[in-house]
Amino acid sequence: MSRSQRTGRLGRPPKLGARQTRDAILDTALELFAAQGFAGTSLRQIAHAIGISESAIYAHFESKQAIYETLFEQVGPPTAFVLDFLQTSGDAMGEADPAVILRQFTQHLLIVWDEPCARRFASFFMREGVLATESGRGSVQAAIRQAQQEFGQIFRHWMERGRIQEHVSPEHLVWELLAPLVTIRFLYLHADATEAQRHEGHRLAEQHIDYFLLSVRPT
Amino acid sequence: MSRSQRTGRLGRPPKLGARQTRDAILDTALELFAAQGFAGTSLRQIAHAIGISESAIYAHFESKQAIYETLFEQVGPPTAFVLDFLQTSGDAMGEADPAVILRQFTQHLLIVWDEPCARRFASFFMREGVLATESGRGSVQAAIRQAQQEFGQIFRHWMERGRIQEHVSPEHLVWELLAPLVTIRFLYLHADATEAQRHEGHRLAEQHIDYFLLSVRPT
Repeated sequence: MSRSQRTGRLGRPPKLGARQTRDAILDTALELFAAQGFAGTSLRQIAHAIGISESAIYAHFESKQAIYETLFEQVGPPTAFVLDFLQTSGDAMGEADPAVILRQFTQHLLIVWDEPCARRFASFFMREGVLATESGRGSVQAAIRQAQQEFGQIFRHWMERGRIQEHVSPEHLVWELLAPLVTIRFLYLHADATEAQRHEGHRLAEQHIDYFLLSVRPT
Repeated sequence: MSRSQRTGRLGRPPKLGARQTRDAILDTALELFAAQGFAGTSLRQIAHAIGISESAIYAHFESKQAIYETLFEQVGPPTAFVLDFLQTSGDAMGEADPAVILRQFTQHLLIVWDEPCARRFASFFMREGVLATESGRGSVQAAIRQAQQEFGQIFRHWMERGRIQEHVSPEHLVWELLAPLVTIRFLYLHADATEAQRHEGHRLAEQHIDYFLLSVRPT
């Protein structure tokens, strides 16, 4: 509405750029999935809600499943976030203080997970996402394993240099870092979470990283 | 059907004892909540599915909400399980080996959470339970706080005797024990979990308790 008012062409939304269209498809799809379920939402409905044709969607995504998988990668498990984080910080990370890096990682992750789109996805995922197949894209188990492997390399590097304890495998240590954060996300950072719940989630995440760093501190 | 066949009074279920009626109400309510949502299920439907009158339900529960709260207490967060466990083991627990007690606790909890009724509740809870109010009965936040306090007393006892590390508060240590188990429950022990997923859940729980015990071991 405000969009048409701005352009002055009532009843006809302005043309969106390719990037904007792609983002609009993802946003709108997530809103509709959350409101009426994945099965109950059609590509036609998504197109209609944006004001584009169904064929315009196919220019960006080959199917409804492909839209879900992209949402899953962007705001689902922390895999994409972990990869970005590792890439940004690069090789220097292995030399940096684990306490600084892991605190920074946790704080950034909580900020990302607290965004409205991510919280909406958390609620939708709790309702439907766990039904995804074990093997395919969009499987949370596969995503966790990938995060364990990628982040595990940094943990291994730190272990080899005696910066963190070697009492368990690097991959399981990543799991112990992430699993309590997943609980925080599900219980305190969903679409209907109150301000107080979200605050509690952030507080618990800080307590968790404090505990984790004490637990892996070399003796 | 098989019930009528057994009694030979087709079309008329036999009278259930009070205990059986109560259990049937809980089982049937959970099945209906899971299939059609809490809001979409009426007391009349529950009564009809069991073959009893609606007023017979009121002999056991004052409302649909009361049924939900009882399910929540029985198969929801581990609070009831924690309390039973603490009561059964009694005062001897503080003197027992933390490693033995905590391993036993985790194994028993996973067995309980893997039961069909508990897995059905996990799926239902993911869909709707987090919407419960923060303060009331049926609030997962309140249940976690209670488990932290009750179990925390044992942890405090162990800390005072130097049996586990004192690096964080007893209450937060309970949280660090339970939060990864909650993630395992949500991701691997829900109603639609495959055999392989459930197996993975049990394996992760064992790895977690190993890690936890290493982390709290006095230096």
